[in-house]
Amino acid sequence: MEKLRAGMVLFDRFELLDACGPLELLGQLPDRVELVHLAEQPGPLSSVQGTQLVADCALADCAALDILLVPGGIGRVEAIQNAPFLAEIKRLATDAPHVGTICTGSVLLAQSGLLAGRRATTNKLAFRWVQEHAPGVNWVPQARWVEDGKFFTSSGISAGMDMTLALISKLWSRDCALELARRTEYSWHEDPDWDPFAELAGLV
Amino acid sequence: MEKLRAGMVLFDRFELLDACGPLELLGQLPDRVELVHLAEQPGPLSSVQGTQLVADCALADCAALDILLVPGGIGRVEAIQNAPFLAEIKRLATDAPHVGTICTGSVLLAQSGLLAGRRATTNKLAFRWVQEHAPGVNWVPQARWVEDGKFFTSSGISAGMDMTLALISKLWSRDCALELARRTEYSWHEDPDWDPFAELAGLV
Repeated sequence: MEKLRAGMVLFDRFELLDACGPLELLGQLPDRVELVHLAEQPGPLSSVQGTQLVADCALADCAALDILLVPGGIGRVEAIQNAPFLAEIKRLATDAPHVGTICTGSVLLAQSGLLAGRRATTNKLAFRWVQEHAPGVNWVPQARWVEDGKFFTSSGISAGMDMTLALISKLWSRDCALELARRTEYSWHEDPDWDPFAELAGLV
Repeated sequence: MEKLRAGMVLFDRFELLDACGPLELLGQLPDRVELVHLAEQPGPLSSVQGTQLVADCALADCAALDILLVPGGIGRVEAIQNAPFLAEIKRLATDAPHVGTICTGSVLLAQSGLLAGRRATTNKLAFRWVQEHAPGVNWVPQARWVEDGKFFTSSGISAGMDMTLALISKLWSRDCALELARRTEYSWHEDPDWDPFAELAGLV
């Protein structure tokens, strides 16, 4: 079986768990998935938390991926003004058959225009900011994640793990996702409509 | 307010989420917590998943910590044979007023003798291995995490986040922990006895 190449985009001040939740789960499938850590330049990048992850491939050098993943984080505020960076996300998102965003990573994908008219969700505490900075998307206020065509968009931070298990379920099987949840002792919120955080954020 | 110094121990093939779950949560409190990433030598260390984190301080150069955290991962099998590495964990664990282990990180702490006669838990799929390699500890088969004196030990991988919120609740307040759970859109399992994975692993 050919491995799927999954690329996680990193940028300065990405949110740590946005990236590491999905990487933990996909990284449990080394026979099926090859992980690539992408950034403008290879080398260490600091998360919001200060923990540094190492990018092993420059975005511009990255050939087409099977799965593109884009995390959020406060660094998005600078990243949405970085045209070459956004152009690489657009290129990879256009080519990839599966695209996922975690938290405010949705706004970086939305800049590509690929979410125009589509349903998507994002971090609930940053929901208004995302709406303002990425109009033309049908932003769903209450959802753990939203699947629309090849695009999976998750709610904030921890929600990326639930979304990743849904993607794994789609790509392989629900049993595979359940087995990974068991192995990581993770209580999967399997219902994409489960979202108590929308109400806590005053969105519903 | 003086910041608490929290050190996460890294080693080759640590489990990614074991480290990054707690780091995400403690890293949400930059006014209260300073994170340090420790390893035998500073520089990048590869997780089981292949994602690399950067250690910013050598264990031997690390002054006393307020919080010591030790993750697990398959690299534990080599790490428990590394006497100088274990000696540094023992030194830091002896001095720190708060010590937490995630997953099989418990076995690395247990080598110090500091868990002798104490209640502790660990990854449920590796439970028998841990029992064999760290006798003399009262290993609890069903628990999301166990608190015994200054020692918090969590079950596998994802359980580290629930334990970290419990530690945050102890150090500051339950409201602080609930606010972090809200901010990270994390559904905190607040009951340390909640553990469906013990049964799935045939331990109860």
